[in-house]
Amino acid sequence: MKSSDFLLLCRSVRFGDTDAAGVMHFHQLLRWCHEAYEESTEIFGIGANELFPRPGLELELLLPIVHCSADYLAPLSCGDPLAIALLPKALNAHSFEVSYSFSSRGEAVAVGLTRHFCLQASNRLRAPLPASISRWIAASAVTD
Amino acid sequence: MKSSDFLLLCRSVRFGDTDAAGVMHFHQLLRWCHEAYEESTEIFGIGANELFPRPGLELELLLPIVHCSADYLAPLSCGDPLAIALLPKALNAHSFEVSYSFSSRGEAVAVGLTRHFCLQASNRLRAPLPASISRWIAASAVTD
Amino acid sequence: MKSSDFLLLCRSVRFGDTDAAGVMHFHQLLRWCHEAYEESTEIFGIGANELFPRPGLELELLLPIVHCSADYLAPLSCGDPLAIALLPKALNAHSFEVSYSFSSRGEAVAVGLTRHFCLQASNRLRAPLPASISRWIAASAVTD
Amino acid sequence: MKSSDFLLLCRSVRFGDTDAAGVMHFHQLLRWCHEAYEESTEIFGIGANELFPRPGLELELLLPIVHCSADYLAPLSCGDPLAIALLPKALNAHSFEVSYSFSSRGEAVAVGLTRHFCLQASNRLRAPLPASISRWIAASAVTD
Repeated sequence: MKSSDFLLLCRSVRFGDTDAAGVMHFHQLLRWCHEAYEESTEIFGIGANELFPRPGLELELLLPIVHCSADYLAPLSCGDPLAIALLPKALNAHSFEVSYSFSSRGEAVAVGLTRHFCLQASNRLRAPLPASISRWIAASAVTD
Repeated sequence: MKSSDFLLLCRSVRFGDTDAAGVMHFHQLLRWCHEAYEESTEIFGIGANELFPRPGLELELLLPIVHCSADYLAPLSCGDPLAIALLPKALNAHSFEVSYSFSSRGEAVAVGLTRHFCLQASNRLRAPLPASISRWIAASAVTD
Repeated sequence: MKSSDFLLLCRSVRFGDTDAAGVMHFHQLLRWCHEAYEESTEIFGIGANELFPRPGLELELLLPIVHCSADYLAPLSCGDPLAIALLPKALNAHSFEVSYSFSSRGEAVAVGLTRHFCLQASNRLRAPLPASISRWIAASAVTD
Repeated sequence: MKSSDFLLLCRSVRFGDTDAAGVMHFHQLLRWCHEAYEESTEIFGIGANELFPRPGLELELLLPIVHCSADYLAPLSCGDPLAIALLPKALNAHSFEVSYSFSSRGEAVAVGLTRHFCLQASNRLRAPLPASISRWIAASAVTD
């Protein structure tokens, strides 16, 4: 699999993402970032049940977001197509961040960032990143 | 406590609730309904941890929504004040519904409905409503 | 174009769509319904700017939702794949509804409904449906 | 009016704000920030229609968010009470930022930041902040 297969994603701005100024309401971008992280890891081959809890399935490791940010470069309207480029990076043994670059029709329109920390679910102490996430990060560093 | 103390609530339309048509985006109303249900039971004296799961706390009974509906009578804009009147009603031993009437400046603007079913968490079989919810429903039937 | 090309859509349950009960939070389904309506009309060839306002573009006709409902048949967890079948239907000259059937791995999991009314933007009086929507509804009635 | 009257606000974590990890889903915090900004300016006496567009009302000045960030210090569960302290600050003649400190039962749980830029609606060129916002910022600097 080429890294672009799981690091370049698409979506469209939907009507419910906009506000009465006519353009995307700012916090929706952070939702798009997280959904892109979910889609990327899924395409890479990591099951949602390895990263995200579901009823009856307790995970040993949790990856809560400890920081996020976003910059808005251009207004986005309903129906605008978006290309999203992800760039994951390990920060140390127990945390990583993902940068998200959004463009529409070739123009950069926004960037986002989420920083994740790895916790043992049982005691909420820090823990090494899951092997699957480390593989995803390593594969992301390989240019096609 | 008078029933109006926990059955008449207020909120305002917020900017993120609107869409590019300039008015409240329809599914936000269902969010307001659920938040009103949470606020009403809280004011009545039922702790959130009696009705809603949280980490490390497993509930014996779950109350998932099995049906909802809404009717929209007038457009709502950012800043519009809302009065919300709740009317809970038992349907049978293991389900109940809540009607929500929204008005703004004295004019009816929307109605909502959520129908809840009571399940045993362990086996997902139907179960009698929690005593706290039955008390809330009974107290709601008493006119001030 | 076959009607299934624009009436059968896919998405996945995302982490932010769930709540602390571990499953999809009910009002997200109505968001999915509207996004399916947007995607279906887009694939059919109706530009977002024909149906949804954007800054600097005033539409002559608006199609606000006047009613919605949903029934929930099974819990949905993060990562669950969804197939969405849309069924649009004209109700009269100035309103239509769309039914949405959700299934996951072959099992019916939820249904949704949105009812839309056509208004003249200038005076908010009822108006005949836009020709593009009438074509979409007519094409939906043709079985492949 | 004391500055604490419009700079110290309250809300509760609602069920729909949580995800399947049982705690507040990260991007909801940015929604709370914006709603706190709306509530604060409203209490201070600035009408929603001075800051936020609504149908039939065009504003001369827009205040889009150009940057936001958040740090998460502790997990938040459904029903947790929140105290929100706002701190607005002018950055220059045409932009300002608002810091938001969230605490629950006396413990700091999160911080947020939104940065706003002032644009002339007609040409999207930068413009001086509206007088109402400048008054709100100035009043915020006065310690009770």
